[in-house]
Amino acid sequence: MRETEEGLVSDGDGYLERIFMSPAAVRAGNLIREWMEDAGLWVDCLGNVHGRVEGTNASAEVLILGSHLVLILDGSLGIISVVSALKVLSIDGKLGDLKRLVEVIAFSDEEGERFQSTFIGSAAIAGILPVSALQITDKSGVTIQDALKKNSIEVTEEHLQQLRYDPKSVWGYVEIHIEQGSVLEWVGFPLGVVKGIAGQTRLKVTMRGSQGHAGTVPMSMHHDPMAAAAEAIVLLESLCKHPQDFLSFDGQCKSYSLESLSTSLVCTIGEISTWPSASNVIPGQGTFTVDLRAIDDIGREAVVCELSNRLYQICDRRTVLCTIDRKHDANAVICDSELTWKLKSAAYLGLKRMTGSVQDEVPVLMSGAGHDAMALSHLNKVGMLFVRCRGGISHFPEEHVLDDDV
Amino acid sequence: MRETEEGLVSDGDGYLERIFMSPAAVRAGNLIREWMEDAGLWVDCLGNVHGRVEGTNASAEVLILGSHLVLILDGSLGIISVVSALKVLSIDGKLGDLKRLVEVIAFSDEEGERFQSTFIGSAAIAGILPVSALQITDKSGVTIQDALKKNSIEVTEEHLQQLRYDPKSVWGYVEIHIEQGSVLEWVGFPLGVVKGIAGQTRLKVTMRGSQGHAGTVPMSMHHDPMAAAAEAIVLLESLCKHPQDFLSFDGQCKSYSLESLSTSLVCTIGEISTWPSASNVIPGQGTFTVDLRAIDDIGREAVVCELSNRLYQICDRRTVLCTIDRKHDANAVICDSELTWKLKSAAYLGLKRMTGSVQDEVPVLMSGAGHDAMALSHLNKVGMLFVRCRGGISHFPEEHVLDDDV
Repeated sequence: MRETEEGLVSDGDGYLERIFMSPAAVRAGNLIREWMEDAGLWVDCLGNVHGRVEGTNASAEVLILGSHLVLILDGSLGIISVVSALKVLSIDGKLGDLKRLVEVIAFSDEEGERFQSTFIGSAAIAGILPVSALQITDKSGVTIQDALKKNSIEVTEEHLQQLRYDPKSVWGYVEIHIEQGSVLEWVGFPLGVVKGIAGQTRLKVTMRGSQGHAGTVPMSMHHDPMAAAAEAIVLLESLCKHPQDFLSFDGQCKSYSLESLSTSLVCTIGEISTWPSASNVIPGQGTFTVDLRAIDDIGREAVVCELSNRLYQICDRRTVLCTIDRKHDANAVICDSELTWKLKSAAYLGLKRMTGSVQDEVPVLMSGAGHDAMALSHLNKVGMLFVRCRGGISHFPEEHVLDDDV
Repeated sequence: MRETEEGLVSDGDGYLERIFMSPAAVRAGNLIREWMEDAGLWVDCLGNVHGRVEGTNASAEVLILGSHLVLILDGSLGIISVVSALKVLSIDGKLGDLKRLVEVIAFSDEEGERFQSTFIGSAAIAGILPVSALQITDKSGVTIQDALKKNSIEVTEEHLQQLRYDPKSVWGYVEIHIEQGSVLEWVGFPLGVVKGIAGQTRLKVTMRGSQGHAGTVPMSMHHDPMAAAAEAIVLLESLCKHPQDFLSFDGQCKSYSLESLSTSLVCTIGEISTWPSASNVIPGQGTFTVDLRAIDDIGREAVVCELSNRLYQICDRRTVLCTIDRKHDANAVICDSELTWKLKSAAYLGLKRMTGSVQDEVPVLMSGAGHDAMALSHLNKVGMLFVRCRGGISHFPEEHVLDDDV
């Protein structure tokens, strides 16, 4: 399978910090490493933390369990749950009864905070991280490769090849994660099984018009990129709420796509800015991001196409230039039906054992958020279990405060 | 009238810089001071630079001519033009023929760059600068009074009183300024006379909704302040383009207001931001500025009222909180008809002398931009002459570059 690259691993604490993460993330990584130590831990050259339990059949395909290293609850729950479960088996003397090799991986840099590139750790394991990814830069222009080199870690194409797992050696991947949404809270159920992970497209839209003094240009002479952006955002919201009103059946989008779009399509304008950003200046430029997600890839592509066409029309009418950059694309991942069924019954039995009786079926959900399972799906089948979380949010540490400035 | 406060004036170069302005503005101020020196210059305790020419009747009311100190062409043209004209009269030996006292004032801090408060210099001369204005802070929390005190300049209510001109002693105020718009460029005329300066309202609108993960909240559950803001901006643009479709004749707005609104109303969204401003997060908050201007104060008030009501409706429907702060209000100023007529014929005669013949009438325009004349109108009649400028923009130094980030 794959050997540990001892020569590439630095010699102590703070290793992760110097590559990808903040001090808190490093402490989390070190803690997980402590927990895993007695199970034969190693850290690979991209910061993934691995633990392994040999099963009765050492030659069987490996079941990978895990999630990602992160500052707060989020992915860490998936790692803690698996390590705890294995600990219980160990205490009960049942660890040796496992039929197959079980590997626990805490994936590094799923969030992509420093290098704005998600799934670096799991993509390397899945063999889909291109060598060019090592040249991705952070905000100060430092590449991933440079950051590693600064810590005496040389990563080459060959090293990336060595990180890659052979698909034939992997039986599947199962991940436990908090839902990051409110569906389980609404239906009043503590667990849910994931049927699939939505595909994503991320756009950066830039509109350029005529900058001017707020008082001296008559309304009829405005070529205002901010007004164009507002019209575009209103259109986008309408398109994502009612895709059937915008997309034709036999043209861009097949009927089954439309049906799944109607239930799964979501869009978000998370960032927006104007230039020069002064209250008394008609902006010369407006820029915003578009995040589009759907379980149906054909449908999502039709939405991106329809949206782009309509944005160009809006801007043409206003004599405003429009540039649409596709910053990120990821196809949807459908979870394995056998794994999904097994997780569903395990969740049901577990809840029944804890509560005495379970009235309803375990809900089956779509995941709108991306997960390492998306990368691992390139190796073999994947399954995911969601845990209810309050208000759907666990992403933002409470010390974030509202900025009162515009 | 008013004595120079010698005791309050610091002793040399850089004086202006330490109070309000950047190094370039200080150089401009010092240059103008040099030009004015032979005409009995003084700098008052708020940085206004004054020059005076005695007329044949020293007891007659004063004609104030001038504009504001600033980094680029903008207001400086008004000062340079007046000083040049007086220089010509002086060379020709005609300075003594002036019927009345003429005072040239280069007003300080019209733009309000450091303290975000416009017309500080001219408002003090006009007697409408409240003592509380001395407590206005810059971005680092330093008050105007502290900044002056740091330079051994003590400004009290009494000093402000001394700066004020007695309205009875002032005959009128005339200002030359670049148009900062494109109307003169369109009609192909180098000069225009201003009939009035539009009133202004500046709003800061804050919308608060439910922050969420971009992938996990169904569209039907979004309470998205960014989507609400986009709908509000589209509405605002429509309202300012077609006020007659929104305001009723006998209700909020009289018919003459509607007519003048239709030709003069302009609005701008210059600044916008979301929080926390991440592409994969439904914002919890969206904030934008609204700049509204019209020559008709009743009409402008009706627009602000109608806009506010509709914004609250939009936000109610979306379960988003909306706060509208009125940050700034200034009433419109109508230029004196006699001064306007005199400026119009002087402009016509001047152009005829330069070009041989003038085919068209001198255009009469509205000023959408604010000017020191707004403050001086509190003393007595005002008149303004506009000079054509290319593209309507002279406000933004060319070293401003487009920011490629969102």
